Order: sequence, then structure tokens, then C-alpha cells
Amino acid sequence: MNTIKPYARKVFYYETDKMKVAHHSNYIRMFEEARVDFLEQAGLSFKAIEDFNVMVPVLSVECRYISPLVFDEEFAVYLKIEKFNGVRLDISYRIVSRNSGKLCAEGRTSHCFTDMNMKPLRTKAKYPEIYNIFHEYTGYEVQD
Amino acid sequence: MNTIKPYARKVFYYETDKMKVAHHSNYIRMFEEARVDFLEQAGLSFKAIEDFNVMVPVLSVECRYISPLVFDEEFAVYLKIEKFNGVRLDISYRIVSRNSGKLCAEGRTSHCFTDMNMKPLRTKAKYPEIYNIFHEYTGYEVQD
Amino acid sequence: MNTIKPYARKVFYYETDKMKVAHHSNYIRMFEEARVDFLEQAGLSFKAIEDFNVMVPVLSVECRYISPLVFDEEFAVYLKIEKFNGVRLDISYRIVSRNSGKLCAEGRTSHCFTDMNMKPLRTKAKYPEIYNIFHEYTGYEVQD
Amino acid sequence: MNTIKPYARKVFYYETDKMKVAHHSNYIRMFEEARVDFLEQAGLSFKAIEDFNVMVPVLSVECRYISPLVFDEEFAVYLKIEKFNGVRLDISYRIVSRNSGKLCAEGRTSHCFTDMNMKPLRTKAKYPEIYNIFHEYTGYEVQD
Repeated sequence: MNTIKPYARKVFYYETDKMKVAHHSNYIRMFEEARVDFLEQAGLSFKAIEDFNVMVPVLSVECRYISPLVFDEEFAVYLKIEKFNGVRLDISYRIVSRNSGKLCAEGRTSHCFTDMNMKPLRTKAKYPEIYNIFHEYTGYEVQD
Repeated sequence: MNTIKPYARKVFYYETDKMKVAHHSNYIRMFEEARVDFLEQAGLSFKAIEDFNVMVPVLSVECRYISPLVFDEEFAVYLKIEKFNGVRLDISYRIVSRNSGKLCAEGRTSHCFTDMNMKPLRTKAKYPEIYNIFHEYTGYEVQD
Repeated sequence: MNTIKPYARKVFYYETDKMKVAHHSNYIRMFEEARVDFLEQAGLSFKAIEDFNVMVPVLSVECRYISPLVFDEEFAVYLKIEKFNGVRLDISYRIVSRNSGKLCAEGRTSHCFTDMNMKPLRTKAKYPEIYNIFHEYTGYEVQD
Repeated sequence: MNTIKPYARKVFYYETDKMKVAHHSNYIRMFEEARVDFLEQAGLSFKAIEDFNVMVPVLSVECRYISPLVFDEEFAVYLKIEKFNGVRLDISYRIVSRNSGKLCAEGRTSHCFTDMNMKPLRTKAKYPEIYNIFHEYTGYEVQD
């Protein structure tokens, strides 16, 4: 297994709103960026998944906002695959400021796997390359 | 009390992603659009709230995605103030396609009220104009 | 020919940035919204164009920012097809505040027509339904 | 003077649209990201500029789209300060794919400097720290 680092970047100017903090919708996008990065580091890129004609749509999302991120603030996303059974996937996220060390937000997404027509599918039998990576990294804690 | 209609518009091209559906983060933005519109219709615009130097940040958001919206599809957002006690505010949302009639997503946000420095405040004593509107419309169902 | 009205809506909260005005990138999106709306009103929706397996990608964009739009401000987009020859399309835009009457931004986009693999194509011979609409509305001024 | 590297990252999933390429409005945002990064590397962060109560709004933007970026494609932005006279600032951008080496887009922005009420100001006399950095890096070519 590969060692996986948290996903990190700074808040973009265009992500702020007139409250002078990152708009709450952008944290949902940061979660997605972190998912893509995690899988890349794990050795199975999103592009590779799509090359199998498999999509991983979001079934639900939740986010609790704790301390606002401001423009140019560096943050890290700590992502963890909480549950995976080949059909459903649950991921949790903690967004931490690298400036203050504060927990800024925490959230969760759940996903299924589908073909290109959004028809759900089981990965275990048909896509072992996909199944194995998610299975292997379930419960894995990213390393600073 | 004013009669309040659901908020409605079509999906913008730039809201779609390579799965050819509205990106899941945009539903969080649709919720916000619907909040702004609801309050406007209720007679207390967001701008009026901000003129009191009061902000209404989002404490948490959740959304369950049921049926994807596609480009140019018209949708309506049915918003309901579920709870309000002058300090905290809980709102629910149902996004329904006006093309298919299908429920596309449902979600919830919770909020507090703060001054311009993000310090929480109680609306009841200090901002009765704000308190009264939220109080009055708690439980109100928008009318098609 | 149909009478075409300017495209209008209000500035969304999430379109603002920490300068407390609509972020400059969003005007490019407003142009797109206005294009989609114009074609819909002209009787040839973007969806109809895509049903011909034709795409209309943007080749270039320019925008001059004159007076900033703020949250909740209503604006109208005055769009005009400046040039069209079946292969290339040039469109101009003026964004006007309905609150102040001020010209807020003006811009221009140029486009070509392609198949689903982004290969350019000529509309005149192969897609007369598309060609005719763009041809007919070239120079047309939207009516308040 | 510091050596400045091009700004680089990958295309995010949410930046794609149903044409399966990065939406054209996002290039305008990439330009902004590159500006922020360039100034940071030059030793004068945007935050530092804002600590002087100075803003640098965009007066105009233009972008020519040459070859589309797709999801997860790594790109670099080559930014150059073309003109600066203390009052006005012109910047050019070239976005290059690090996968294909292709030039994907090129553009330009112009800016002025204002106080927090959007009133234009001259940097030379009043803000030499700001003036000097922009002056010094005018014409500077970022180094791979």
C-alpha cells in the first residue's frame, strides 16, 4: 500500500464571498478535490476508473462548518474511507487550517458505482481493480 | 402574511459536469438562491438583514441526491423553515424537476445569526424585525 | 421572427467575492446564460442544437468591467449576434443594472460549430435549421 | 529578485462541463490563481496588498481558447506583467498543458489599484512597497 498524504492547497480569491470567507458551497468541492487526489495517490486515478466506463456519483453530502477559511489560507483535507462493500462507498473529511491548526469543517459523502448511463453496478465481480483499491484503503488514515 | 411561491429557474450550462448532469455542489447553491428568494417574498430581503449588520452564516448543510438535473431542465425549490428560536434556524429544501415532476434532491441547512465580526447574536430582543419574519414563516409551506 | 427580451436575473450571494461585488469571472457565465436564453426565445434551444450532435464552443471571450454589480442587484443582458457566416459566430453583450440603469460590463464572445468530437463543421449545408436561426437573428436588437 | 515558477495544478472535476472539457469561464479563474501565486513568489502577497487597504480590481479580461483542457490534466500558467505605471497594470497569460505540451489558452487582464471604496489610487507616492514590486517584475518571464 502507498503512503497517502492529506490533500492541501490555499483558498482561491474567487472562492470567497462578501462575508470575506470561503463560501460554504466550496467545501463540497474541496471534498471532491481530496477524493480525486486520494485515489491518485492510492494508485487508481479517477481517469482510470472512467476508463473502465465506471462513474462514482455522489448520493449524499453533509458538511458541518466550524471555523471559516479565509482567502489564501492553506488547508489540508483529511479523508477516510469509512465504509465500502463494492456497491456503496462512505467517505469522511476533516478540513484543517494549516495556518491556525484549527478544524474548519468536517463532512461526509456517500457514493455508488454506475455505468455511463448511471445504472448502479457491483464492482466486486466485474471490476476487481476498482474493488480492491477501495477495499484495501478502507479505514486508512492519511499521514501528515 | 405574503403568499410565497417556490423558487424556480433552469439549470445553467456551466453548472453541468462531464457526467452531463448538474454538479452536486451546485444544489447547495440552489438552496441559497431559494433562501434569498423566500425572504424577499416574505418581505425581509437579505440586503435588509445585512443593513442591520446581521449575517446568517451556514452552520451545516446536507443534501441527498435522488434524480439528476440536466442542462436547461427547469426545477423548483420548495423551502420550509423547520425550526427557529431567534438564535438558530433550520431550513429544509426539496428540489423538484418541472419537466419530469420528479423529486431530484432534498436537503437541509442550519444557520445562526451573527454581527459583522461573525459573533453570534440573539435576534429576539435586538432585531425584532428579523425575529418576527422568521418566527411568522416557521412551518410555512410555499404554494405552487 | 420572435420578439426577444433581454435576459435578466439578480446577482446570487455566491457570485460575490470579498470585494463585496460580483466576481469578474461570473460575467462570463452571465454571457452564457444570456446566449442560452436568446436562442430559446428565438425558437432554437441549445438542447435542440445538441440534439443535432452539434456543439458551439467558445473560441474567445472578452469583457470590460465598468461598474460593479453587487449582491441581489438585478441586471439585464443585451445580447446581439454581430457576425455569422455559418462557420463562425460573434456575439456582443451589454450588462445593465436594473437598479441604477448603469452599464456594468460589456463583452464579446466568438464561437465555432463542431461535432461531438470537437471537429469544426459548416452549418449552412448540413444543418439549415441551425444556420437559418443564427442568420435570421444576426443584427437583431433585443427589446426591453 | 526572486526566481518565479509558473503556477501549476490539475483541472478539477467540477471545472468540467457537459462538453467534457474545462468550462471556458474557469480559465479566467486560473488567471487569477496565477496572479496571486506570482505575487506571493515575488514577495508581495495579495494579503499584504490588502493589508495596505489596497484592492486590485480587474478592468478587463480577454481569453483565446486554443486547445481544451480535460479533467485531471495538469497545466501551467505563464504570467507576465506587460505594462505597469503605478496606476494601471496589464498582465498576459499563457496556459500550457503539462501532459501534451500544447498551448491551451492565452489571455490578458488589465487592472487598476483602488482603496477599499473602489476609488482609484496611484501607488508610486503612497505605496512604494507595492509600486516597487510591480515595477521590478514588469517584463519578467517565469522560469520552468
